[in-house]
Amino acid sequence: MRIDFLTLFPDMCEAVMSESIIGRARKKGAIEVHCHQIRDFAYDKHKRVDDAPFGGGKGMLLMAEPIALCIDNLIEELGEKPHLVYMSPQGKTLTQQRVRELAEYPNLALLCGHYEGIDERIIDQYVDEEISIGDYVVTGGELPALVLADAVCRMIDGVLSGAECYQEESHFHSILEYPQYTRPAVWRGIKIPEELVTGHHENVRKWRRQQSLIRTALKRPELLEAADLTEEDYKFLSDFQEKLKNMGDKKAEIE
Amino acid sequence: MRIDFLTLFPDMCEAVMSESIIGRARKKGAIEVHCHQIRDFAYDKHKRVDDAPFGGGKGMLLMAEPIALCIDNLIEELGEKPHLVYMSPQGKTLTQQRVRELAEYPNLALLCGHYEGIDERIIDQYVDEEISIGDYVVTGGELPALVLADAVCRMIDGVLSGAECYQEESHFHSILEYPQYTRPAVWRGIKIPEELVTGHHENVRKWRRQQSLIRTALKRPELLEAADLTEEDYKFLSDFQEKLKNMGDKKAEIE
Repeated sequence: MRIDFLTLFPDMCEAVMSESIIGRARKKGAIEVHCHQIRDFAYDKHKRVDDAPFGGGKGMLLMAEPIALCIDNLIEELGEKPHLVYMSPQGKTLTQQRVRELAEYPNLALLCGHYEGIDERIIDQYVDEEISIGDYVVTGGELPALVLADAVCRMIDGVLSGAECYQEESHFHSILEYPQYTRPAVWRGIKIPEELVTGHHENVRKWRRQQSLIRTALKRPELLEAADLTEEDYKFLSDFQEKLKNMGDKKAEIE
Repeated sequence: MRIDFLTLFPDMCEAVMSESIIGRARKKGAIEVHCHQIRDFAYDKHKRVDDAPFGGGKGMLLMAEPIALCIDNLIEELGEKPHLVYMSPQGKTLTQQRVRELAEYPNLALLCGHYEGIDERIIDQYVDEEISIGDYVVTGGELPALVLADAVCRMIDGVLSGAECYQEESHFHSILEYPQYTRPAVWRGIKIPEELVTGHHENVRKWRRQQSLIRTALKRPELLEAADLTEEDYKFLSDFQEKLKNMGDKKAEIE
């Protein structure tokens, strides 16, 4: 897979995409990443890429032509149009399901806006999809594009090492992860849970599952509805809720 | 406000926080940012910071002590405990409301996990809050921490310039933004909408409001419920829905 960033801050994108897991994957050729400076396609001598919006209003918009030339240049280089995503608060909110689908495109191009936004005609003429990473506002499209690229890259074969692949990630199992502990078993006077000391395989499995269920019930109860629960899970959850209720009753009695 | 990153990749965090709007705000002293290398607090000669989880399983966990020493060092430097956020898929999903609240802390510290996660005792002993940026999986906590830091920093006085402050951002007005256009008025044969050419102030206002309403109705209808709509808005939306219905009926007739 190849990912292209179209941005006013290619150095920032390059810096992030060169580190850690993604940087290693690029070195061994599992993914290809290129960062393009939109300003290189500005056509006046001041290399201007923004202008005031028609109809008035504060803030500046990215002009259509430099972005269009940058995209045209990329299409020529690739020999085909990449799937072009514009990172925008107007877009659909990213989900892990969409991440998996985006990982199927051979060429993904991420257009990063800055200032007030971009000339709408670029969206009409070139953009295949607008994506938002969440309901909060950031200063530009670069961090959202980097988040999307990172999430997509880790789905590509050869990017994660064996151990990393086997992570039982929260979002893939639809319930939250159990707490984890590493050496020393007693750290600053705090012991790890008894169940993990013995190392008895079945007890560990059971304890972890129950911890996941408790956490999910307390922190993200809506996830339990979509989760793949066994009869044992249901029984545990119902006992747990009974216990919570009894504790509540006792507390009320004392007060 | 001061933000501290606790990470295995301080260079990457520093690179992002030095660019553009945030970089400019740091230079003029509106915000203070520091990036700490957790590995500097490893206590063995190999500078090891991770180990296998108790109870088995693939993947590695960040050990408690190097993180604890890194936090202790920060507390000593600050003279008080900062509000410590752990970026985690287990956390509450970030919203603009929470961004605004986090911007009130004088000291915010962002702990970035990597590998399988961190020893749970750190969360119990030090972490004030776990935050997730969305329902998708990334390779580490750095990008989520950078997204959070960027969103929080732009709420701090003196970070955004006058023009940037006045942006009518989608998430602050609960309906989506209208399309925007800049020069030239005709670009590659495509004209900007007639309403924006005349520049008549009241017509522009009306057209923009209606475009925002249409977009929101089509892309994020759930936002309309919470939006602050006028009688004029309601009338326009009901006429628009009528038109859509008529178009649908006509299409059915033709077919």
